Amino acid sequence: MMKIVIDAFGGDNAPLEIIKGAVKAQEHFKIEICLTGNENIIKKVAKENNIDISNIEINHTEDVIPVDETPNAIMKEYNNSSMALGLKMVANNEADGFVSAGNSGALCVGGTLIVKRLKGVKRPGFAPILPTFNGSSFLLIDGGANLDARPEILRQFGILGSVYMEKVMHRESPRVALANVGTESHKGGDLQKETYALLQDSPVNFVGNVESREISNGACDVYVCDGFTGNILLKNYEGVAKSLSHAVTDIFKKSVKNKIGALFVYGDLMKFKETMNTDVYGGAPILGIKKPVFKAHGSSNATTIFNAVRLTIDYINANVPQVIEDSFNKLKGIK
Amino acid sequence: MMKIVIDAFGGDNAPLEIIKGAVKAQEHFKIEICLTGNENIIKKVAKENNIDISNIEINHTEDVIPVDETPNAIMKEYNNSSMALGLKMVANNEADGFVSAGNSGALCVGGTLIVKRLKGVKRPGFAPILPTFNGSSFLLIDGGANLDARPEILRQFGILGSVYMEKVMHRESPRVALANVGTESHKGGDLQKETYALLQDSPVNFVGNVESREISNGACDVYVCDGFTGNILLKNYEGVAKSLSHAVTDIFKKSVKNKIGALFVYGDLMKFKETMNTDVYGGAPILGIKKPVFKAHGSSNATTIFNAVRLTIDYINANVPQVIEDSFNKLKGIK
Repeated sequence: MMKIVIDAFGGDNAPLEIIKGAVKAQEHFKIEICLTGNENIIKKVAKENNIDISNIEINHTEDVIPVDETPNAIMKEYNNSSMALGLKMVANNEADGFVSAGNSGALCVGGTLIVKRLKGVKRPGFAPILPTFNGSSFLLIDGGANLDARPEILRQFGILGSVYMEKVMHRESPRVALANVGTESHKGGDLQKETYALLQDSPVNFVGNVESREISNGACDVYVCDGFTGNILLKNYEGVAKSLSHAVTDIFKKSVKNKIGALFVYGDLMKFKETMNTDVYGGAPILGIKKPVFKAHGSSNATTIFNAVRLTIDYINANVPQVIEDSFNKLKGIK
Repeated sequence: MMKIVIDAFGGDNAPLEIIKGAVKAQEHFKIEICLTGNENIIKKVAKENNIDISNIEINHTEDVIPVDETPNAIMKEYNNSSMALGLKMVANNEADGFVSAGNSGALCVGGTLIVKRLKGVKRPGFAPILPTFNGSSFLLIDGGANLDARPEILRQFGILGSVYMEKVMHRESPRVALANVGTESHKGGDLQKETYALLQDSPVNFVGNVESREISNGACDVYVCDGFTGNILLKNYEGVAKSLSHAVTDIFKKSVKNKIGALFVYGDLMKFKETMNTDVYGGAPILGIKKPVFKAHGSSNATTIFNAVRLTIDYINANVPQVIEDSFNKLKGIK
C-alpha cells in the first residue's frame, strides 16, 4: 500500500492542523500515513481534540527545525528533526513520498542531500504553483532553491516543470516560458540569451520569453527563472495577493453601508479572493530529486495538508522522477 | 523662467492627451512648456479639440521612436526623434527638464548618452514609484536600465533613490532596503552580501534586507535591486495590480445583485483601486544623469502628464542632480 510521511511539526499551525489533515487524507485516500515528530505531543493534541489517530503511524523525534534556521542546519544539528526523519524515510524507501510545511530552505537542502538528485539533474528546483486571475495556475521554477544560475540549469528547470505540470497537474503540452525583460529572443543578459537557445532545443513546448506582467493572466504553465529572481517574484506575488485580500475584507467592514453592500456581493468577492489564494494548491514540489517531496505552505491548515497529500499521490502514481530521468536521457541525445 | 520640454509623441495616448496635459501644466504652474514632435499634427489635433496652444512652444520633428524599438536606436536611426530632440534640449541647457511617456529603454539610453551621467555615477537607474496598500509609495531602483549588477552600482542606486525620495517626494530620512531572499545580513549571493556591507557604510538610512512580500505594505521608501530582478518585479507588481482592478470591476458588473451591492460600496472600492493605481505617481525619474528626465507611464493621460511635470518641477527646484553629486563626494571621503 502506498505510504506517505508527513512532518507533524512543520508550519504555523502544527501539529493540530497537520494531524487533522493527515487523518482526513488517510480516511479519504485509504493509504498509509506516518507522522514524524514528538509522539507524546501528537497523542496529547489528538486526544484533546477528539481526533482518532489509531490508523496513523508515528515516527518519534523530539527535534524540530525552526522555520528561521539556516537551511544547512538540517544536515547538522537538526539531522534528527521531524523534517530530516521524513526525508530519511523516503530516501530509505520506507515511504513513497514526503510532505512538510516547515522551513523551505531546509527542505530543499535536505531533499538534495538526503533524498538525492536524479541522475543528470544539476540542481533541484523549488517549484511553487501560483494562481492566476483567470482561475488557472502556473508553476514557477526556481522559487529560491539555488542562487547560482547557469543556462544549463535553467533549461533543466524548464524540463522539470513541464513534466510536473503535465503528469501531476494534467496540463496538456505545458507552455514553458523564460522570465525576461522583453519578449524578443535577444532580450536580457547572457544568461537569458543562452537559456533561450537551449530551451528552443529541448523536449518542451517552449513559448519564448514572457514578461512578468503577463503571468497573473495565465500566459504560461511553467515560468523559468533563476532562484534569486524567482524568490523575489514569488514573495511579491504572495504579498500582493495577501494584502489585496485583507484590503477588500477591510473595505467591507468599514461602515454599515459597506456591510450592506457586502451582503449582495459577498459570495462573488469571496470566490475571487479564493481564486487568488496562494495556499489553495497546497504548495510546491521540489523537482529533480529521487522521490516525491512536497513543500506545503507555511500557513497550511488541514485542507492544505490534505491537498498536498493528494498532489503527492498523483506525483507518485505518475512516477514523475522516472519520467524526468527519461526526459533527461532524451536530452542527452539532442546535445 | 523655468522651461520644461515634453515629448508630444510618447505613450499610448499621444499626442492628444500629452497636449492637454502640457497646456494644463503651463496654465497651472506658469512655466514655459515646449512640445517636441510634428508641428502640423500637434496644431491639427489641438484645433480639432479646441485646445489653445498659443502659449506652447513647439520644436518640430517628424520622427518618433516606436515603443518596441531597441533602446540603442535613439542614438542611431532615431536620433532626430521627438524623444531625442527633448533630451538634446536639456543637454544643451535649452530646457530645465524633460518628460516623455515613450520607450523606457530608449529614454534610459538617451538620458545616459545624450544628457550624460553625473560625475562619479557608474550607472543611472530607472526609478519607478510604486503604490503600497497603505496609501503610501516606494521607489524601486533599478527598474531595468542596466542588466549588469555590481555591489558598487547597487550601493549608488541606494543613494540616488534616497536623495530623490527625500528631496522630491519629501520623505524624511528615507528607509533604504536591499531586495533579498531573507532578512539576515548573510542572505543572498555575493552581490547581495557585498552590497549589504557597502550600504551600511553609506550616507543613507539603510534598514537592511527586505523580502519582496513586505514592499506592498510600505516596508521601505527605496527598494534596491539589480535591473533584471527590478524589471521582473516592477512588471509583476503592475500586472497584478491591473488584473486585480479589472477583476473587481468585473465582479460588480456580473449580476443585478452585484450591481446593487456596488451602489453601497462603490466609493470605497474605487478609492482602493485608485490607491493601487500604478499610474498615479506619473512614472519614474532616471536618476544619476545631469538633468531631470522623467519617464511618464506609457498609458499616460493628461493628468499623468500634469503630475509628471509637477514632479519634474520639484526635481528641478530641489536641484537633485547637485545634491546627488554632493552625496557622491561625501562617499569618496568614506571609501
